[in-house]
Amino acid sequence: MQDALLALTRYWTDRGCMIVQPFNTEVGAGTLNPATILRVLGPEPWRVAYVEPSVRPDDARYGENPNRLQTHTQFQVILKPDPGDPQEQYLASLEALGIDIHAHDIRFVEDNWANPATGSWGLGWEVWLDGLEITQFTYFQQAGGLSLDPVSVEITYGVERIIMALQNVSHFKDIQYAPGITYGEAFGQAEYEMSRFYLDDADVDTQRRLFEDYAAEARRLLDARLPVPAHVHVLKCSHTFNVLDARGAVSTTERARAFARMRGLAREVSALWAARREELGHPLGTAPVPPAATVPDTLPEATGVAPLLFEIGTEELPPGEVTRSARAVREALAGKLAGTRLAHGEVTVHATPRRLVALVDDVAAREPDARRFVRGPKVAAAFGPDGEPTRAAQGFARGQGVDVSALERVDLDGVEHVGVTRTDAGRGAVEVLAEVLGALVTELRADKNMRWNDPKLSFTRPVRWLVALLGEQVVPVVASSLAAGRTTRVHRTAEVPAVEVPAAAGYLEFLAKHGIVASVVERRSRIVADALALAESAGGTVDVAGEAALVDEITNLVEEPNAMLGGFDPAYLELPQEILTTVMRKHQRYLPVRAADGSLLPHFVAVANGACSAQAVRAGNEAVLRARYEDASFFWRADLKVAPETMKAGLEQLAFEERLGSMADRAARIAAVAADLGTVLSTEDSAVLARAAALAKFDLGSQMVVELTSLAGVMAREYALRAGETPEVAQALFDMERPRSAGDAAPATLPGAVLALADRFDMLVGLFAVGAAPTGSSDPFGLRRAAAGVITILRAHPPLREITFGRGLSAAAERVRAQGIEVSPETLAEAEEFMTRRAEQQLLDAGHDHRHVAAVLALPPATAAETLTALSARRDDEEFAALAAALQRVRRIVPADTASDYDPGRLTEPAEVALHQSVGTVTGSLGAGPHSLPEFVASANALTVPINTFFDDILVMAEDPALRAARLGLLATIRDLAAPVLDWQALGTQ
Amino acid sequence: MQDALLALTRYWTDRGCMIVQPFNTEVGAGTLNPATILRVLGPEPWRVAYVEPSVRPDDARYGENPNRLQTHTQFQVILKPDPGDPQEQYLASLEALGIDIHAHDIRFVEDNWANPATGSWGLGWEVWLDGLEITQFTYFQQAGGLSLDPVSVEITYGVERIIMALQNVSHFKDIQYAPGITYGEAFGQAEYEMSRFYLDDADVDTQRRLFEDYAAEARRLLDARLPVPAHVHVLKCSHTFNVLDARGAVSTTERARAFARMRGLAREVSALWAARREELGHPLGTAPVPPAATVPDTLPEATGVAPLLFEIGTEELPPGEVTRSARAVREALAGKLAGTRLAHGEVTVHATPRRLVALVDDVAAREPDARRFVRGPKVAAAFGPDGEPTRAAQGFARGQGVDVSALERVDLDGVEHVGVTRTDAGRGAVEVLAEVLGALVTELRADKNMRWNDPKLSFTRPVRWLVALLGEQVVPVVASSLAAGRTTRVHRTAEVPAVEVPAAAGYLEFLAKHGIVASVVERRSRIVADALALAESAGGTVDVAGEAALVDEITNLVEEPNAMLGGFDPAYLELPQEILTTVMRKHQRYLPVRAADGSLLPHFVAVANGACSAQAVRAGNEAVLRARYEDASFFWRADLKVAPETMKAGLEQLAFEERLGSMADRAARIAAVAADLGTVLSTEDSAVLARAAALAKFDLGSQMVVELTSLAGVMAREYALRAGETPEVAQALFDMERPRSAGDAAPATLPGAVLALADRFDMLVGLFAVGAAPTGSSDPFGLRRAAAGVITILRAHPPLREITFGRGLSAAAERVRAQGIEVSPETLAEAEEFMTRRAEQQLLDAGHDHRHVAAVLALPPATAAETLTALSARRDDEEFAALAAALQRVRRIVPADTASDYDPGRLTEPAEVALHQSVGTVTGSLGAGPHSLPEFVASANALTVPINTFFDDILVMAEDPALRAARLGLLATIRDLAAPVLDWQALGTQ
Repeated sequence: MQDALLALTRYWTDRGCMIVQPFNTEVGAGTLNPATILRVLGPEPWRVAYVEPSVRPDDARYGENPNRLQTHTQFQVILKPDPGDPQEQYLASLEALGIDIHAHDIRFVEDNWANPATGSWGLGWEVWLDGLEITQFTYFQQAGGLSLDPVSVEITYGVERIIMALQNVSHFKDIQYAPGITYGEAFGQAEYEMSRFYLDDADVDTQRRLFEDYAAEARRLLDARLPVPAHVHVLKCSHTFNVLDARGAVSTTERARAFARMRGLAREVSALWAARREELGHPLGTAPVPPAATVPDTLPEATGVAPLLFEIGTEELPPGEVTRSARAVREALAGKLAGTRLAHGEVTVHATPRRLVALVDDVAAREPDARRFVRGPKVAAAFGPDGEPTRAAQGFARGQGVDVSALERVDLDGVEHVGVTRTDAGRGAVEVLAEVLGALVTELRADKNMRWNDPKLSFTRPVRWLVALLGEQVVPVVASSLAAGRTTRVHRTAEVPAVEVPAAAGYLEFLAKHGIVASVVERRSRIVADALALAESAGGTVDVAGEAALVDEITNLVEEPNAMLGGFDPAYLELPQEILTTVMRKHQRYLPVRAADGSLLPHFVAVANGACSAQAVRAGNEAVLRARYEDASFFWRADLKVAPETMKAGLEQLAFEERLGSMADRAARIAAVAADLGTVLSTEDSAVLARAAALAKFDLGSQMVVELTSLAGVMAREYALRAGETPEVAQALFDMERPRSAGDAAPATLPGAVLALADRFDMLVGLFAVGAAPTGSSDPFGLRRAAAGVITILRAHPPLREITFGRGLSAAAERVRAQGIEVSPETLAEAEEFMTRRAEQQLLDAGHDHRHVAAVLALPPATAAETLTALSARRDDEEFAALAAALQRVRRIVPADTASDYDPGRLTEPAEVALHQSVGTVTGSLGAGPHSLPEFVASANALTVPINTFFDDILVMAEDPALRAARLGLLATIRDLAAPVLDWQALGTQ
Repeated sequence: MQDALLALTRYWTDRGCMIVQPFNTEVGAGTLNPATILRVLGPEPWRVAYVEPSVRPDDARYGENPNRLQTHTQFQVILKPDPGDPQEQYLASLEALGIDIHAHDIRFVEDNWANPATGSWGLGWEVWLDGLEITQFTYFQQAGGLSLDPVSVEITYGVERIIMALQNVSHFKDIQYAPGITYGEAFGQAEYEMSRFYLDDADVDTQRRLFEDYAAEARRLLDARLPVPAHVHVLKCSHTFNVLDARGAVSTTERARAFARMRGLAREVSALWAARREELGHPLGTAPVPPAATVPDTLPEATGVAPLLFEIGTEELPPGEVTRSARAVREALAGKLAGTRLAHGEVTVHATPRRLVALVDDVAAREPDARRFVRGPKVAAAFGPDGEPTRAAQGFARGQGVDVSALERVDLDGVEHVGVTRTDAGRGAVEVLAEVLGALVTELRADKNMRWNDPKLSFTRPVRWLVALLGEQVVPVVASSLAAGRTTRVHRTAEVPAVEVPAAAGYLEFLAKHGIVASVVERRSRIVADALALAESAGGTVDVAGEAALVDEITNLVEEPNAMLGGFDPAYLELPQEILTTVMRKHQRYLPVRAADGSLLPHFVAVANGACSAQAVRAGNEAVLRARYEDASFFWRADLKVAPETMKAGLEQLAFEERLGSMADRAARIAAVAADLGTVLSTEDSAVLARAAALAKFDLGSQMVVELTSLAGVMAREYALRAGETPEVAQALFDMERPRSAGDAAPATLPGAVLALADRFDMLVGLFAVGAAPTGSSDPFGLRRAAAGVITILRAHPPLREITFGRGLSAAAERVRAQGIEVSPETLAEAEEFMTRRAEQQLLDAGHDHRHVAAVLALPPATAAETLTALSARRDDEEFAALAAALQRVRRIVPADTASDYDPGRLTEPAEVALHQSVGTVTGSLGAGPHSLPEFVASANALTVPINTFFDDILVMAEDPALRAARLGLLATIRDLAAPVLDWQALGTQ
């Protein structure tokens, strides 16, 4: 292994990098070494390489896990500015390490990097070696909150992983570190002991104190304008935070707050560093910028109709952008061509991760000439009384460069003008295309764009080459520093990776000969067919429909799909399938193989890119999956030894929020609120709720969830079942974490829904009470999501309609107050208003009419949703409009404090008697509420006419007070009958 | 520079070292990386090399000093076990770095290493390249308080220094770090900013808190049996301590306490690591031990008388050991030869740093045979009455293997015995010498000994070869793993560094031909002559007598003296000469060159070893001195800008001891105590004392003293003078720090002496009061030295005799109490007893008779010293003995409570009247006391006879009480007259 580090050092020194030492305080990644995080700022060039032992307390596994280490070795390279071919330089470095890049499947898989603790981000990839992530490759866009110009390329090698693959060992301890000594022999004891420290023995109080001390010192050093020592202290903060995290002592809210604090400090450090470098006059100078490509003075002429090929060559696009960019290019190209007079045939665009290929059939050699009339003065103004051209006419003619006698007369919209007819000569196709295609590239954008060494272009990944051929003729397209030619790039591992394209015609076949399938459709169907065949060979199948999104993603990860069947130890099938498939899909992009009954088989389909050694690649992929499953198994086995109650006891150690106490306190509050809100449940459901509430959140104490937080709830269900809880209780525990995000399903069961509500009400009230309500764009605790969750749950569960926002918040407030925290009525009102506004926004975002939204906003969410649907259905319903108008009329005239009781005996006029009777009939037919809008309308339509008649015939404000009271009471009765259905006034006039 | 690191990495990898990374928490030295400090423990082999950026906050200079950096780069190598030729491997590594070891003066200069913070030490050298320390080379003997077996060789390269020499640049910032970028460009800003942090901006309270937190965490981790994370936290402690120190926030006492704490933790870490490795079964195995050399079966015979050469070849001996070892070898060899019968001529021993050469003239070829009589039974028991041999005689004869008839008769002390005369055959010279010389090497010891790869030998430095020749014949001496031969080693840089010695005769000439001067005397005289000649060439001279100790040291630092004249910028002469010469002598072993008036000239004489490029070596040495002077100038200039009062105000920031307050508190106490004790001074001296007391300790606030603590007092004098204080005040401030150590001079002036006393009494009382009295071998605050200082001062200044221990301690106690700290009478008594015991021990150590010591112990030190001298002079003085006996007789009979007044009228017997009159005469002639012993004796001798007559004639215990009282009163008067002179009883009978 030490030879590998030396080989990399030598390789990058030969490429002009200086070598520095690892940083001498713990860093979580080489990026945080000031040689990266500070040096990428500002205009100075910088090329550096170094080894960085990266400390990740969270990855501590006592040395037992074959792939996870609390300290792993990174080899870090920074190239500033981007040299233009960093991927190629990187691949050569792998060869310098002895990796046969022809035998293995090496891929650049989208992985955008962000370090919230320092306010830094970049776009790039993880580099896969047979499915194993061996390198992080990033174009740094921002650091410490500052935009980077020039952009730096960051290459971070995961050295242990590379060496394990090279030495073909399956446990890091077996790496031959140096002659005669293994990694385990050299570092095994430290790995075990530091794991013990990070996972079990670090003193939480001490670490918290250290965090505060470091942060304060960083603050002071910033004030002293010393960015370097300030940065050191931000690093110490960050490491201490990581230790606390590994000890399971950081709650969500604490995490958010700590991150915000570290980010703030890091931003200041960066700004200060940049300012100081500027004050020092940028001692290392300014990085060079590639010059703009030059446009040839004369453009060739096309001869005859010819097809156009325009290829935009990129570094690996994110899968999601492949198809999207193809569409965008097609639209842009078609649009731009439409803006010219160049005749052409069909425009098609194909896309792979590395190229956008636009083909245009039958492009004319030139635009036709075009004639157009240039309008001059009105004839009336152009000629004097004597027919002589006026000065205006003469001026116009002179301006057009014609004699005044050449002016024509044309009737424009009934007014005669003078003018001239001009001929615009058509341009040659090459000229037109050069302009159109150049602009297309310059304007090309994706959802998330980046910069690289080009001074002007911006796209989701760097554009590195352009091919533009009209027939066999190069179209000299220029876009910033790029100039199109006829050279395209095929597989990087091809014997000749850059080849000349003879002509536009037959380009897809040309690419196919080089092993590249340009068509997304063709690649996809090939993958599906191969995957099904491979699965069948293992006695199983792939759920192609169910995995459609994954298949789409895989399709856009390769230029030449090469599917292969891999297997894993069936012993891992003892793990919940949800874990296994999550790992396969999310981490590895493998297709799970299932038996006919849907159960998982110990196989998977991986799709490599291009030709490679099937044996090597399969073995590599299997090793990766084994390592990941080993990791999961480790937690699984460890957790199964712990009873849910014991795990739950561990929540005492998990802080939630300083004033709101531990996670155990929170769980207790949730249980109490759930009991309060759960009174609407059946006896059976109540029992389930009680038991589930007692265990609420217990899986937060499990190692699996500490490691994979997204499995909270999932693991609760699994562990609860295995601990002998009933399926109903397990399901409630699973449900209480749902919905996890916008679009996620609501809880399936009522007990689960009540728990989920209690969870969210507690979070809202607690955090509002301690002054942590969201402000502006900042919502560190995710309270918007919590509010949205409440709405989703209530909408999904009409039986819970009695649980209004107010009710839920009050119940939660009671428990928060019991903990000695003041919750003022204003706070509760604020929280309720916050929730209402979220509900409103959600409905508006869903495209509902703002008046409809206003009308239903006071209703329970479930009712509101139904009502909205009903309202939409009645958008053009005149009968309904009349009813609404009548009810609004009633409401307008009745003072708000008028009660709905009245003495019918007072009513004597026919219209009022009729209305009284109609109200009686409607009330009778409606029965006890609540009523849905359709129910209400079905009965209440009968009121429209009597109400209108009443108003036509009757003076409500009679002079006799008793009579007036009876009439108002009658109207108030109607008002109160209608009010629970929706806010009729809000509907306005339709 | 990065190429140099790569070259070293490659060099040591090729020699089987594994490469590890720098440690990821700040370390002050590569030694502290667990790859050294833990791995050197236990029996497992270990070979490692790594770069270590070593953080020394104290060395921070804002990047301004050309040689000092807060972070410098070490390259660290550990060879465990010692490979037997580590010096040679090291020299080859310098060649790998491109250093021409033939042109430069490369030397191994004694430098024993100890890290108090970890309880580790080793013996070895700093390696000098033309006077520049470029490497620390250590045989690790102990780590964390544990003895090391096997011993590790530690080689620590100071990379910046080596590169500066290689690149011939005079400031670290100018080092070409990598192509196109200098060290300053790469690291200059960090150097400046981290200097700011360490020197100015680190928050002291925060750092103190961090220290406590780290120490507590280390404690916990030890209890959890996790040595690795515990070690990490000890390192963090240590770094934090260094930060506090650089901030000037650590007092002497705090330092001692912090060190004790860190050492305690470090020892536990080491013990725990060793225990854990043992529990793990020593995974790396056990290091091999060189086998014992074999003794040949048959030994050659010498023919005729021949000279013997025995050379013990060593690695560079400490200069102090060269002469000492030569003497020891001579004595041991002569003694051992005397234990044999081998005839030989003169034994002479010569010594250089690398060899002890014993020469013995005229060694006989064999021991002569020897005859001896073996005694049997007495004749009376040997023969029966009939003259027949008894069974006893027969048995004896049988036992001796002779016939009974062969028994001889010999008179032994008047009793006739039978017996036999046996002949012991003389052994051959080779056999005798092999045994004697083998034992000599095995038993060879120095004051401070070490171990290396040999399993049995132990000496001040490794013994690497033996040459033993009797005439031309190799004597097969064997000592543990070493076997003697005829191969010696000459200069390491010689073309052939190992050569065969043809014969013992002419060996000194043989060595001389190889450029080695074996004789110490010859080397010394050559150095003196050359130095004087060189100094003269620069118009100056060298104070050879004054620098005798330095000349001796230089003599034993080289095998072939090569003196050269160097110069320095005369501008540095503005610095106090004490600073300049201290740097020359202590740091560089240069001889200062002075003008006729004694003033310093800007020249020095350096003495290189053997042939080298004079130009390169001179330039190198001058650069080193320049750097050191630059450092001193930096402080000097900075300090001169600060008034003494301002510096003194800074003492508020210097903690002395937690309960005893700041250094300012201590200075205030000292001033008050000095005022109290100073009442004995003249008015003039009192004024000096008052001013000096007001400034006491102010230079502790200067940068120079913070950096070079040994200049405390020296700098006070310089800065005070320059600030306009009188020379007397300046001298008193200088004096108050004296004596610095045993053997150092006492204060020259009385005001200085009083201040010095006050300083030490305050320290003693204060620390006894807070329970920090020395215990057993532990005296972290140096209170033994303080007590010894008091004694030295009082002995040097008889006018201060009134300042007894008790008086001084009481005065100090008053001030300590004024600070709210309880000082009980028991504490004071304890402190006084402690001082008395120190005084006693000191006198005993000086070789005084224990009875004399006891007799003077109660006297003021000045008087005690005089009295001891007088007592020694009277050791054989019978008249004095008679006087002493008479006085003891008086003392024995008088009860302790008897007063010395009596009624002379009661005395009537002649003997009592005579004694009364004699007492009167003696009292009169003595006059008022105190009296020295000689004064007293001169008069009191007249009492001896009257006393003895009195006792002969008079019954003291007369029945008449009045008479008895008068007689006892008379004797009590004599007792009291004699008592202040010394404790006569303690003298015993002489």
